[in-house]
Amino acid sequence: MTIARPSGRAPDQLREVRIVRGFTHHAEGSVLVSFGETRVLCTASIDNKVPAFMRGKGEGWVTAEYGMLPRATHTRSDREAARGKQGGRTLEIQRLIARALRACVDRTALGERTITLDCDVLQADGGTRTAAITGAYVALVDAVRWLRARREIARDPVFGAVAAVSVGVYRGVPVLDLDYAEDSDCDTDMNVVMNDGGGFIELQGTAEGHAFRRDELDALLGLAETGIGELLEKQREALAR
Amino acid sequence: MTIARPSGRAPDQLREVRIVRGFTHHAEGSVLVSFGETRVLCTASIDNKVPAFMRGKGEGWVTAEYGMLPRATHTRSDREAARGKQGGRTLEIQRLIARALRACVDRTALGERTITLDCDVLQADGGTRTAAITGAYVALVDAVRWLRARREIARDPVFGAVAAVSVGVYRGVPVLDLDYAEDSDCDTDMNVVMNDGGGFIELQGTAEGHAFRRDELDALLGLAETGIGELLEKQREALAR
Amino acid sequence: MTIARPSGRAPDQLREVRIVRGFTHHAEGSVLVSFGETRVLCTASIDNKVPAFMRGKGEGWVTAEYGMLPRATHTRSDREAARGKQGGRTLEIQRLIARALRACVDRTALGERTITLDCDVLQADGGTRTAAITGAYVALVDAVRWLRARREIARDPVFGAVAAVSVGVYRGVPVLDLDYAEDSDCDTDMNVVMNDGGGFIELQGTAEGHAFRRDELDALLGLAETGIGELLEKQREALAR
Amino acid sequence: MTIARPSGRAPDQLREVRIVRGFTHHAEGSVLVSFGETRVLCTASIDNKVPAFMRGKGEGWVTAEYGMLPRATHTRSDREAARGKQGGRTLEIQRLIARALRACVDRTALGERTITLDCDVLQADGGTRTAAITGAYVALVDAVRWLRARREIARDPVFGAVAAVSVGVYRGVPVLDLDYAEDSDCDTDMNVVMNDGGGFIELQGTAEGHAFRRDELDALLGLAETGIGELLEKQREALAR
Amino acid sequence: MTIARPSGRAPDQLREVRIVRGFTHHAEGSVLVSFGETRVLCTASIDNKVPAFMRGKGEGWVTAEYGMLPRATHTRSDREAARGKQGGRTLEIQRLIARALRACVDRTALGERTITLDCDVLQADGGTRTAAITGAYVALVDAVRWLRARREIARDPVFGAVAAVSVGVYRGVPVLDLDYAEDSDCDTDMNVVMNDGGGFIELQGTAEGHAFRRDELDALLGLAETGIGELLEKQREALAR
Amino acid sequence: MTIARPSGRAPDQLREVRIVRGFTHHAEGSVLVSFGETRVLCTASIDNKVPAFMRGKGEGWVTAEYGMLPRATHTRSDREAARGKQGGRTLEIQRLIARALRACVDRTALGERTITLDCDVLQADGGTRTAAITGAYVALVDAVRWLRARREIARDPVFGAVAAVSVGVYRGVPVLDLDYAEDSDCDTDMNVVMNDGGGFIELQGTAEGHAFRRDELDALLGLAETGIGELLEKQREALAR
Repeated sequence: MTIARPSGRAPDQLREVRIVRGFTHHAEGSVLVSFGETRVLCTASIDNKVPAFMRGKGEGWVTAEYGMLPRATHTRSDREAARGKQGGRTLEIQRLIARALRACVDRTALGERTITLDCDVLQADGGTRTAAITGAYVALVDAVRWLRARREIARDPVFGAVAAVSVGVYRGVPVLDLDYAEDSDCDTDMNVVMNDGGGFIELQGTAEGHAFRRDELDALLGLAETGIGELLEKQREALAR
Repeated sequence: MTIARPSGRAPDQLREVRIVRGFTHHAEGSVLVSFGETRVLCTASIDNKVPAFMRGKGEGWVTAEYGMLPRATHTRSDREAARGKQGGRTLEIQRLIARALRACVDRTALGERTITLDCDVLQADGGTRTAAITGAYVALVDAVRWLRARREIARDPVFGAVAAVSVGVYRGVPVLDLDYAEDSDCDTDMNVVMNDGGGFIELQGTAEGHAFRRDELDALLGLAETGIGELLEKQREALAR
Repeated sequence: MTIARPSGRAPDQLREVRIVRGFTHHAEGSVLVSFGETRVLCTASIDNKVPAFMRGKGEGWVTAEYGMLPRATHTRSDREAARGKQGGRTLEIQRLIARALRACVDRTALGERTITLDCDVLQADGGTRTAAITGAYVALVDAVRWLRARREIARDPVFGAVAAVSVGVYRGVPVLDLDYAEDSDCDTDMNVVMNDGGGFIELQGTAEGHAFRRDELDALLGLAETGIGELLEKQREALAR
Repeated sequence: MTIARPSGRAPDQLREVRIVRGFTHHAEGSVLVSFGETRVLCTASIDNKVPAFMRGKGEGWVTAEYGMLPRATHTRSDREAARGKQGGRTLEIQRLIARALRACVDRTALGERTITLDCDVLQADGGTRTAAITGAYVALVDAVRWLRARREIARDPVFGAVAAVSVGVYRGVPVLDLDYAEDSDCDTDMNVVMNDGGGFIELQGTAEGHAFRRDELDALLGLAETGIGELLEKQREALAR
Repeated sequence: MTIARPSGRAPDQLREVRIVRGFTHHAEGSVLVSFGETRVLCTASIDNKVPAFMRGKGEGWVTAEYGMLPRATHTRSDREAARGKQGGRTLEIQRLIARALRACVDRTALGERTITLDCDVLQADGGTRTAAITGAYVALVDAVRWLRARREIARDPVFGAVAAVSVGVYRGVPVLDLDYAEDSDCDTDMNVVMNDGGGFIELQGTAEGHAFRRDELDALLGLAETGIGELLEKQREALAR
Repeated sequence: MTIARPSGRAPDQLREVRIVRGFTHHAEGSVLVSFGETRVLCTASIDNKVPAFMRGKGEGWVTAEYGMLPRATHTRSDREAARGKQGGRTLEIQRLIARALRACVDRTALGERTITLDCDVLQADGGTRTAAITGAYVALVDAVRWLRARREIARDPVFGAVAAVSVGVYRGVPVLDLDYAEDSDCDTDMNVVMNDGGGFIELQGTAEGHAFRRDELDALLGLAETGIGELLEKQREALAR
């Protein structure tokens, strides 16, 4: 069976992925990640203390914040700072990013420090949360390397790697890495976060209009496994440069 | 392999489920749902208008709000109204409930009306969001019956049924319908929403500490299918009374 | 002179009052109180510290919060947590509840602890604040018994008892314990809080449309004294079970 | 029985009351009222529309806002605008002022207009809410005269007059018009609003520490009747100048 | 060249300036300053601690808050406390007042204390921020005298004096101390803060509609120097009384 | 007299200025402007309506919003969206940007449209507001060209050009275009906005610690005139590409 994806990609084909380290200079880790036209600036900031609920345990903490510049989108969205609160979608995404990254950090090895991952979308074209997770991992590794270069921590708190991708059923066909044109015309999609051991860290599948069958789900999971394998490779290449 | 669940239940055993219709009198639909010690009051309220972004389309809207009484939990939580904002968890859950219920409503048949599902947790013991979805479906049907009894709508906008359950890996064993004792001691859990056609509406799996393998995922999905089958039956019985 | 109260009650007749202890299980005190169709869940929660302004005095504190479920009323009200603030009516009522209950607590005997009384209206039919005070007293006693059973305090900090009722002039006749139908058709009403020594703790009389004469005021106070006597008896019965 | 009030006043003696009309120039009514050292600026502002919930009824609306300058008090209080919300006490007082003044306005005669009474405390020494009501009445009359001078309304919407005073039990003796020194050393006090027909519009009595007996209540009401008689006379004199 | 200023003043003529000390009694410094019909109540409050970011440095802090009573203006403005936030104009003005006054305070001599200058506009007719700075200086000196009278500080932390005035180009002519009629009909205006050594502390010139030339700027600065000289003299007279 | 600026620049030397048009793709105008290490993304968004206070006048509106990514700075700042409000500095800067750009727009020629200039700082090294104004002008011109290319407006609403630069006294010497190292070690600085006719649009000079003399002010204005001349040339070059 054949479909024409709006971008002309094959069903199991990622968009072009670029990972630029050191995009800005103040943060301990700073990565500009692009999944096609989606561009997210991910910074990792180290703070030598932990939130109140973590104090005195000898463990560190990893948290995340997510934002979208008002004109990252086709039409301008309200600035959340001006509206006076972060929307439900924003909170949901930043909680997801934080959980995903905590899954590869040994908090005892980190010590009583907080690493904050700020993921700010400069341009949106679908898949901002999966690009954010994939890029934030690289920023996190850079921040940890910065700590280790100063000999502030004895052993590496990052174990394994984490990446994320979206999959969905577009016009009846399971496809990988939805862009905005597909996302807005497809009511079944799933965000998948995995580690480099092939384990699932997060699955968030939504079928607001049309429920998906078990066999569709299986096909989507297969696509995600393939795509995440490639993303993990991109991360390795970027970190080796 | 055997484990002792804290409650003594079998791995594939739901807690006792009760669905009390007409629990309060003002709402068009009002259901007290219990999954064991978890008790959620779900009301469905009809308003003869739609939000601004839906106006003039001839379609209805279904939305949800979720709240937890301050002392629904073991230790008292802050009242969100007093803190001045709803937390990320609350927003995430109410967005989930709304999406789940919209999946079984034909918005054109509903006409320009909003149905708001308020799910307020009177007592929490794990699984409040899945109980809320399961109960809110019954409240929704009652509200629609109220509309139809007054001949305000020509045909039934509810198609099929929707229910939800949690599943997780507890001490290495996949189990159904986690209670609080299991939930707090198990870092892999998944909330599953399905319809009565066996289709998946939402999957939200989280493995903050420990990633789950594909075979675990398959076992969890199987448990969820079984559990949701029983919940759909409970809903049918309640609606037949 | 005869009037027909919408409910058919005599002018000096309370609605049916029920007080169910242990309605939920986590709180140290948990009471579902009903004045007819008005139902309020009152929980008393103990916290082993006091607010900043009370610290270091060796005294305890009693505070209250009040909420109304969105569909406790005939038409749905906005959820205060979603609007981002508690309204003036809510703040006024919770301040009243707290003052009323503090009037029967010896804060030195309580020690540096806070008891928070959460009064959440599940269904409203007039008189929610007076039902809340009457029920919260019972929850407070239960919480204090819980403390004493654990020998955390040496002597009973609760002295006497407190209950509340509304009175008003309905179609020219002073009546006791207004329900919603009366309340909305009567612009003179008064909430009265008294203790079991016959002392007045709070009087809040409002005549937005029509001012009340001194003789009407005297009649209303007489009705309140009678009604509160019966409520104090109901509290005693409930606490003796 | 004799007591020494801190101010040396007799138990039934008001503080010196001054009512200055035209204190500022932009408002349709502007009154600086003093009860001894308590000074409140009351302005009445006319707006030729009504709030949404009143629209299309052909009736007007009267509302009030209350504020305290940060250093109106002995020690500086936080500015409510800076804290981002009005406290419960402020909301309670402004609701009281508005209800009190609505009790002497024929809203049909006012037409679809809103009169906002802003009561801002420049200096506080007890009794700010009763001074505010007493002064706001004069500002309201001035605003209505302004309307009538322009022939915008056909007949006078203000009927009768309204004034307010506090009473309390200070060291066992009922006294009139509490100042700060008495208020802070006396836990039984009552604010009384009456009209010039001798009718009660609001009674708000609070006995946080010590409950008051019926005979004390009667004595307090008698003092209030006397004091309000004098205040109504002060209003008449001011309006005649 | 001649113009008629609405007030009939000469181009380099200030409005009548009055400075009343001790206008209210609780604050350590309390000044009612009038620039013509603009009237601002400035209080200086002393607190024996400093904000968190200043702690432990052995230095004091000077801060300011600005407010406008709702009916200080021709038409009523919303109360910022009711809207739940201070507007950008308010924040901008209070930051300006604070910087201006900090410029004449030796924070080491002040010790770990905060002086808060509250500037509340009772009536507005243009130039509220310049009147506020000019009056707040006098309140600040009074508060410091209060400290010195109690021998709480060893040496005077106030060096020199600070005053402010507005200047602008009105119908082509540079004029001093704009009133509301001029301000609203002139799109080039500048607020100037100077000390008694002839130094500039703040310059804020805005030409939203029409840009000003260098020679106009020079003329405006000259007018400001003259006007501020007179204001400094008024401050000295007030402080000598 | 010689000083060593930290960057080695001459006193009248700008940092390297780069203006990249079309940096993102959705906005009608999108410019990345750099003043040395300070990098600001300026987008211009067109909306075919105006705010309520401008409706029905046949005129357009130009507004601005300013934000700083949390890790644009040396140490991470709180995200304003998370804190729930924009700080005073942010509001002050965005009001300045908006006034500056409105000074070169003929609002009648624009018609009933709003152009919103979003200036988001990706990296901060001093001078973010002056870089923002300089870049926003180019984004504004691009947005207007977009409108004209679609023939939505008949004539060009932009007249002249606007640019901005900071100047200050660093170690006694007036210097142009302060970077962060200079800015934090120099308490006299001024932001100057000018147009291409040599007119001043905004002057904001602040001397919190040390007041500046008239001759210093004259020197600073001279430097600003020179610097802005170069910036206007950079804008022209960028717009000609």
